[in-house]
Amino acid sequence: MNAPQTDVDDELSARVAWSRVIEPGDGVAGELVRTLGAGRALAWARSAATSRDVPMLVKELVDNEPALDDVRRRLGTAVGRWAGRLADLDPARDLERMQRLGGGVLHPGSVGWPVGLDDLGPTAPMCLWVRGRLEVSTVLDRSIALVGARASTSYGERVAVELAAGLAAHSTCVVSGGAYGIDAAAHRGSLAAGGTTVALLAGGVDRAYPVGNAPLLERILEQGGSVLSEVPPGGVPSKGRFLMRNRLIAAVSRATVVVEAAWRSGALSTANHAVALLRPVGAVPGPVTSMASAGCHRLLRDGAAVCVTDAAEVLELAGRAGEDLAPERMAEAREGDDLDWVSRRLLDALPGRSAVGHEELARTAGLSVGEVRGALGVLELAGLTRRVGAGWARSVGRTTMGRS
Amino acid sequence: MNAPQTDVDDELSARVAWSRVIEPGDGVAGELVRTLGAGRALAWARSAATSRDVPMLVKELVDNEPALDDVRRRLGTAVGRWAGRLADLDPARDLERMQRLGGGVLHPGSVGWPVGLDDLGPTAPMCLWVRGRLEVSTVLDRSIALVGARASTSYGERVAVELAAGLAAHSTCVVSGGAYGIDAAAHRGSLAAGGTTVALLAGGVDRAYPVGNAPLLERILEQGGSVLSEVPPGGVPSKGRFLMRNRLIAAVSRATVVVEAAWRSGALSTANHAVALLRPVGAVPGPVTSMASAGCHRLLRDGAAVCVTDAAEVLELAGRAGEDLAPERMAEAREGDDLDWVSRRLLDALPGRSAVGHEELARTAGLSVGEVRGALGVLELAGLTRRVGAGWARSVGRTTMGRS
Repeated sequence: MNAPQTDVDDELSARVAWSRVIEPGDGVAGELVRTLGAGRALAWARSAATSRDVPMLVKELVDNEPALDDVRRRLGTAVGRWAGRLADLDPARDLERMQRLGGGVLHPGSVGWPVGLDDLGPTAPMCLWVRGRLEVSTVLDRSIALVGARASTSYGERVAVELAAGLAAHSTCVVSGGAYGIDAAAHRGSLAAGGTTVALLAGGVDRAYPVGNAPLLERILEQGGSVLSEVPPGGVPSKGRFLMRNRLIAAVSRATVVVEAAWRSGALSTANHAVALLRPVGAVPGPVTSMASAGCHRLLRDGAAVCVTDAAEVLELAGRAGEDLAPERMAEAREGDDLDWVSRRLLDALPGRSAVGHEELARTAGLSVGEVRGALGVLELAGLTRRVGAGWARSVGRTTMGRS
Repeated sequence: MNAPQTDVDDELSARVAWSRVIEPGDGVAGELVRTLGAGRALAWARSAATSRDVPMLVKELVDNEPALDDVRRRLGTAVGRWAGRLADLDPARDLERMQRLGGGVLHPGSVGWPVGLDDLGPTAPMCLWVRGRLEVSTVLDRSIALVGARASTSYGERVAVELAAGLAAHSTCVVSGGAYGIDAAAHRGSLAAGGTTVALLAGGVDRAYPVGNAPLLERILEQGGSVLSEVPPGGVPSKGRFLMRNRLIAAVSRATVVVEAAWRSGALSTANHAVALLRPVGAVPGPVTSMASAGCHRLLRDGAAVCVTDAAEVLELAGRAGEDLAPERMAEAREGDDLDWVSRRLLDALPGRSAVGHEELARTAGLSVGEVRGALGVLELAGLTRRVGAGWARSVGRTTMGRS
């Protein structure tokens, strides 16, 4: 507590400092900052952390700021959690460091702050640490999160690559978590198609996690994308941070698609965050014999996700009404498609070889003789029947028999 | 029209005769039989078919039977369609023939008539031609239709076999269409598990279609199942009959599951009939890279089907409320599952090797020193932490790091 304090009067610096004090998703800090502003909130936290009578400080604060009544009971505990980290804060050094890394820090007042984060309310991040393109709001405006299991199958990776490439081809940013498996495949697919992709990490943006994906993160930056985190530089990823990071992936994206996920997978938490944020959720089906798709099928069964099978359907999922509709799939046209019902039934009844007369055709097809005469004219014009002596047969080389 | 007419006074014989006169799904004949009874309806049709003034006969009929007003305009056309087949009817011979085949004929008044067929209204079949077990209503009471593409993949066939075997193990009859591909796999899976299975054919029950499945149909009969059709013996399958047959599969079953179906597949018509009949519909997902699953995914996307991945989920689909619920899937328990939130966070922050003290742990985990003390006690009791000198470390041989 006795270390010299640098200036944290401005909102950005104070939020940078807060970012080092809290764990992601700290709603008490969020309420405090929302009510007092980040600088005053930090000053209050500092005085509380060194006070011998925190309950009295809390009472005074809430009496003056009734908006904080909801977190009244949690403020004391929160101060205890913040205490150990309130010393040695140096936001100016952090900001310099980010500039050296070729990035910066966004806060809710910044141009480029992803507005989707505001939907998180008091658990929104204090700030966003950014490497690469700083002004991420534009690319995120039409972004899709593609997430899934680290323990992916070659099927899942192939689908992730193809979906991401398809999205990139439609100028749609792919957001993922930079992990092995589906995440990496999604980033790679976007890059391969020349797209912009954004990785949201659970640890600091200066440390690639997992290290094996460091070259992938570099390529993301080289190709105009960004690497983001709410955890300050140097921060290590932890279980809780992974789960909290997932809410950011859901919040910055217009829709979230789970490509492959086991019955119990972190990707499902991203999907659940997206549902809570009223963002559309898609799930890619897979073989029911593959445990790596069980989580996707679970989402489909629960009605939490829409079934998506290609990039067009993903775009439709995220699309605005009337736009981005997946094209109607064209099925191969089949003989008889454009015929009326009576002519189709007669075509079905026409023998392939031996020719038969009107009355037998009528009995076979269950049509009246008059209907047979009319329909034979239709079929003859369409080249589907031929006269053989006094009777009629199917045109040579054609067959439509079979269950349709 | 001048052939000698056998007695068709009784309802069964008259319906057997009607079954030879109409094409499946003839709603005009259905209304006529419902209003007049099958015998009087047949007599009227015979007189109309030979009359020179059908409109006058129709007017007289509808004046006497106002219930037929809905079909007034279609009666004339219908008479023309029936005319060619009204001669040479011999229901007594048909009934004898079915007895020789080891079967019989069911009509709505029979014990054993599947009551689900009544939901089809006027398009319900006149009668049901049966080989094998005649009293099918009992086995059909808890039956599931498993349908799908003839052009199936080994994946689809494997899933069909496994689902059918799982249903048979729960004394649930599998209904299908006796075709190659998914249908055959469904029948085989049921038979392999000792189950009773029912094949609903688009042609007569005396002719195996496709012929390659004749041995399969024989095994169905040997094992106590039935082969059914609304088309009389000798009847050939046609496109229209396949599509109409699909409504029967949907109607006799408690639920319909599409295992594999292309974007345009007859199996989708069965699903659509089931939807129209308010029967539950399930679809088995598959790889999005497989065209053979595109129809299943279409049903899922349209919200027409529920995603089902195993027999338990299929039983739940067809189940009564409170019964047949699929068991909650057990995920493998993971270390820390039963810990409170604070202890889990501390466990995450514990170093693997070097030991650290309370204050550093508090800073790392974002917890107060008091919470750290308490949680260390919890973790120590659980064998998850160990004292090392004045500090604490994770117990040897355990690691929980990673994205969950």
